[in-house]
Amino acid sequence: MTLPVGARIGIIGGGQLGRMLAGAAARLGFDTSVYCPERDCPAARVAADNVVADYNDLPALLSWAQTCDVVTYEFENVPVGAVNHLTASGCLVRPGARSLEVAQDRLQEKTFLSDCGVQTAGFRPVNNLTDLASALEELGGSGILKTRRDGYDGKGQRRVSAGDDLEGAFADLNAQPCVLEEIIPFTCEVSTLVARSITGETLCYDVPRNEHVDGVLHRSIVPSGADAGIEEAAREAAVRVADALGHVGVLALEFFVLEDGQLLANELAPRVHNSGHWTPEACVTGQFEQHILAVSGWPLGPVTRLFDAEMGNLLGADALTPFEVSPQGSIVTLYGKQEAKAGRKMGHWVRTGF
Amino acid sequence: MTLPVGARIGIIGGGQLGRMLAGAAARLGFDTSVYCPERDCPAARVAADNVVADYNDLPALLSWAQTCDVVTYEFENVPVGAVNHLTASGCLVRPGARSLEVAQDRLQEKTFLSDCGVQTAGFRPVNNLTDLASALEELGGSGILKTRRDGYDGKGQRRVSAGDDLEGAFADLNAQPCVLEEIIPFTCEVSTLVARSITGETLCYDVPRNEHVDGVLHRSIVPSGADAGIEEAAREAAVRVADALGHVGVLALEFFVLEDGQLLANELAPRVHNSGHWTPEACVTGQFEQHILAVSGWPLGPVTRLFDAEMGNLLGADALTPFEVSPQGSIVTLYGKQEAKAGRKMGHWVRTGF
Repeated sequence: MTLPVGARIGIIGGGQLGRMLAGAAARLGFDTSVYCPERDCPAARVAADNVVADYNDLPALLSWAQTCDVVTYEFENVPVGAVNHLTASGCLVRPGARSLEVAQDRLQEKTFLSDCGVQTAGFRPVNNLTDLASALEELGGSGILKTRRDGYDGKGQRRVSAGDDLEGAFADLNAQPCVLEEIIPFTCEVSTLVARSITGETLCYDVPRNEHVDGVLHRSIVPSGADAGIEEAAREAAVRVADALGHVGVLALEFFVLEDGQLLANELAPRVHNSGHWTPEACVTGQFEQHILAVSGWPLGPVTRLFDAEMGNLLGADALTPFEVSPQGSIVTLYGKQEAKAGRKMGHWVRTGF
Repeated sequence: MTLPVGARIGIIGGGQLGRMLAGAAARLGFDTSVYCPERDCPAARVAADNVVADYNDLPALLSWAQTCDVVTYEFENVPVGAVNHLTASGCLVRPGARSLEVAQDRLQEKTFLSDCGVQTAGFRPVNNLTDLASALEELGGSGILKTRRDGYDGKGQRRVSAGDDLEGAFADLNAQPCVLEEIIPFTCEVSTLVARSITGETLCYDVPRNEHVDGVLHRSIVPSGADAGIEEAAREAAVRVADALGHVGVLALEFFVLEDGQLLANELAPRVHNSGHWTPEACVTGQFEQHILAVSGWPLGPVTRLFDAEMGNLLGADALTPFEVSPQGSIVTLYGKQEAKAGRKMGHWVRTGF
C-alpha cells in the first residue's frame, strides 16, 4: 500500500535515528508519531505526537499503532512478539518482524546469512561452559564470546582464549546464551546500505569504510578505498539479504575485509545505520528520507553520491563544543540528547569534498 | 548572547517557514516551541512544544516566550507591540522589533529603503480619494495602489489609472491607508537573501531570478542570468538594509531590474523567504539553518553554492501528486498542510544541476 500525502508514520524507538527519520518524514509532509518508553526522547521532540509506554505493553502499542498509517522502527530490539501482535491486528509494519527476528539474535543472524550464501566468520553456539570449551577448541583456541541478544557498540562481548578464566568470562556476560566467533584478521571494515521498496526494487549506496574505536563507530569514509570488486560483492550480498528478508526500508550489512579481498559479514541492522550518516550531505537522497520513501510505499530516490565524504561521531562532552572539535568546514548534526554522558552518541559531523 | 547546545528556540508563526526553521533547528540539536493561533499548524507538528493563542494575547505570549532561550518569527505581521512587550520583559527576540516595524508598513518600508540609499519605485501615501487623485497625477496617470499593511502574494493591491473608478478601487481595499506605487517596466525580478549574525557579520546567498504568476512566486532560478554588477549591487543594498536594521537572522530584499540595469527595491521580508527555498539543496548551508545559526548567536555557515538550481512552488492540488507534477529528478518538500486549497502554497520542488 502506498501512503497518501500527509499520512501518519509511526516510529517505534525514540533515539537519534528516530529523530532523523522524523525530520526526513516532515520534509516529505508526513506527520510522525513516536512510541518510546522514555519521556522527552530525542525523536519525540520533533514528532507531531508521541506515546510514552513500554514496548511490551501490547494494548498501548496497538492503540498507538492504530492511529498510524504505517509503523516502522529505529532500532532492532523491538520485541518480535509485539510486532507480530500489530501485524495480526491489521497494522502495517515496515520492515516486517522477520527482519527484526533475524537481527536480534546473533545465532539466527549468522545462520540466516550463511543460508543466503553470505559468508561470516566461523561461529559456534555457546549455552554453557562445556559448549564454550569445545567451541574454543574447534575455532583454534581463541574467539570472541558475544551474547546472542542485546549487544551493541561492542557491549556484551569478551575476547577469550583457551586457558583463560572461562567461567569468569561467561559469568561476566551473565551466562546468557552466546556465540563464540572466530577472530578475524581483517584489514578493514566496510558496510553496505541498501534500500528496498515495497515492489522489491533495491538501491545500494556507495560503500563506506568504517573505523571503530573501543567497539564504537568512529569514522565512516567514502569512497572506501577497497577494490571495486569487493564493493560490488558487498552490495550484492546486502541485496540478497534484503530480498531474502522481504525487507522494506533501509538495511545495513557490515563486513570484515580480509587481506585476500574476501568479505565476511559481521552484523546486520534492519534499519538506517550510523555508517550511513554521511548520505544526507553527500547523496541526492539521504538514508533517512530513503527509509521514509520505502516504508510509505513511495518510489525510492536516487542514491547518486555527489561528493566524497567523511563522517565522525561526536561522543559525550565533545558535543558541547561541536564546532571546536569537528574538522573545519564540517556540517554538524546534534541529537538533542539532554545529558552528555561519556561515550554517548550525541551528534556527528560530515565533511564532504565539495 | 550565544545559546548553549540544546537550548530552546521559540518560533512565532506556524506555517511552512516555521516548519522548515524547526526542522533546521532540530538538526542542530535545539528544541523548538511554536506559538501560533491555529491548532495543528504545520510548524507545531515538528516542534517539541507549541502554544495555541492569539498574537495579541500578551500574557500568553510572554509566559510562552519565558520558556524559550531566544524567540524568532517566521512572518512579518507579528504585532510590533507584542514583540516590544517581550523585549521590555527581558526576552531575547531576534530579529528585533525594528525589522518587523519597517517590513509591516509599505510606507515605512519605502521611506526606510530610501533613507538607506536603496532606490525604490516612486510612491505616494494615499489616505483618501484626494490623495489618490493627486498621487496619480504626480506618478504619470497610473500606478499600483497597495494597502500599507497585510498585503502578501499580490493580495491587497489594484492597478489604477486616471479615469478609472477610483472610489471603487479604494473601497475594494477597504479604504485602508495605502501607497500608490509607480508602475515599473522591469525586465526581471531578483532577490537577495542576506544573513546577519549577532556580531554584525553578513553573508549573502547567490542572487536568484524570480518569476511570479498571479502575484505569487512561481519559480526561482540561480544563477539569475543578470550581470555580475547588478547582482553585486543587489547584495550590497541588502547588506546596507540588514546593517541599518541591526537585523539578526536572514532577510530578503526583492528587486525589479530595469532595462538599463538599474535596480529598484520592491519588498523587504525580515525572515527566510520563498525565493531562498533552493538554498538547502544547492548550498552548503541552507537559509533555514542559517537563520537558526544567526538567532542562536552561533557562527554563520558558508553560503557557497554547489549547484545551479531551480525552485518551483507546488500550489493547491498539485501537492497531492507532487512527483507527477514536479520536473524529473526534483527534490520535493511538502509542508504538511491539511487542506489543499486552490492557490495555497503546499510544497515546493528543487531541481539542481548536479
